[in-house]
Amino acid sequence: MCRSFARMEYTPTDRTKIRRVPERANYDRELVHGVIDEALTCSVGFAVDGKPWVIPTIHTRVDETLYLHGAPANHMLKSLADGIETCVSITLVDGLVLARSAFKHSVNYRPVVMFGLATKVEDGAEKETALAALVEHVARGRGADARPPTANELRSTLVLRLPIQEVSAKVRSGGPLDNEEDLGLDVWAGVLPCTTAYGDPLAEPGIAAAAPGYLTRYGRP
Amino acid sequence: MCRSFARMEYTPTDRTKIRRVPERANYDRELVHGVIDEALTCSVGFAVDGKPWVIPTIHTRVDETLYLHGAPANHMLKSLADGIETCVSITLVDGLVLARSAFKHSVNYRPVVMFGLATKVEDGAEKETALAALVEHVARGRGADARPPTANELRSTLVLRLPIQEVSAKVRSGGPLDNEEDLGLDVWAGVLPCTTAYGDPLAEPGIAAAAPGYLTRYGRP
Repeated sequence: MCRSFARMEYTPTDRTKIRRVPERANYDRELVHGVIDEALTCSVGFAVDGKPWVIPTIHTRVDETLYLHGAPANHMLKSLADGIETCVSITLVDGLVLARSAFKHSVNYRPVVMFGLATKVEDGAEKETALAALVEHVARGRGADARPPTANELRSTLVLRLPIQEVSAKVRSGGPLDNEEDLGLDVWAGVLPCTTAYGDPLAEPGIAAAAPGYLTRYGRP
Repeated sequence: MCRSFARMEYTPTDRTKIRRVPERANYDRELVHGVIDEALTCSVGFAVDGKPWVIPTIHTRVDETLYLHGAPANHMLKSLADGIETCVSITLVDGLVLARSAFKHSVNYRPVVMFGLATKVEDGAEKETALAALVEHVARGRGADARPPTANELRSTLVLRLPIQEVSAKVRSGGPLDNEEDLGLDVWAGVLPCTTAYGDPLAEPGIAAAAPGYLTRYGRP
């Protein structure tokens, strides 16, 4: 019973325990995985000489591991590979919350924040798995079409792994929470939903074939 | 001549000089402002005891100042108000770039990264201006409708200002850059454009009035 509970939720730590509006905190594995998988990019934070950096990049998840990748000369990846702590933040915005009062305006969002030590992936098989997962993270089905990386390309890609362990999500949903005394004001209140929309695929010159179904009917997990 | 050039572009510093693919670097004020204004949220990075934090929040811009706000007990705002450095990252994603090779897959995006010291806004008039700009950042036109903050609400809001000074943008656009020897491969290649789409406004129970035009025809600057 205990074990199955442990499997379903991450354990809050001092850093991931949400103190502000704690009822919006969420440590559910499935929810956290869902945000990570749905978001195309993340923001990677690290400190060099005590000074913060936040760099956007693309990520992918395999089970309980987040993978980052890039050129070996990449400042962010090099800094992390030195064995320093990172904080990775991923946010999906679901709607604008328009309250009657300016003060109660809000955003419906699902941020995930995780902390940990990223390490360089040295194992060749793990590196190939991570890079294959990255292509599938961009578009599910793409891996079967794209030319796989050569030995040279694998060598010129630095891949880092970050265990998904010290992590929390926060979920704000629903309408505005106006003060009772504002409910009678003659001000429209509600939610403007938002989502990421994908257009028609634009083929490169010389591509005569129709775009594959995973692009014409594109959707994120 | 020199002066007008200085006005149009930010000056790169050691931290904002883009070394990887420098031809994508951009220090144009108008472009940087455009990304900041179009993006609803940003990722705020800071280090406490040398350890990084990245927290998503909503922002707004007034001329060359970025404003952040929240509850005075907010960990991120309290940390920054202590006078520590911050790095704020803002990213807009414009498309997925599908190359013939897995290696050349990319993302069309417009990240802005800025560094600096945030300070607490003490001046009442500046605070009111910043909070009014925040409501307009959520939806242009909303400020005329929403009930303005009371003195109490103003006191319960911490507003920080960050000068937009040490900042860079990076812009990746266009199709994939496949190796010449891959151009003949029978793999679809091109771009899948993406954007944020806004749905129909969802009114709170009891709201009989039609949603205002700035929501039914919502668009970001």
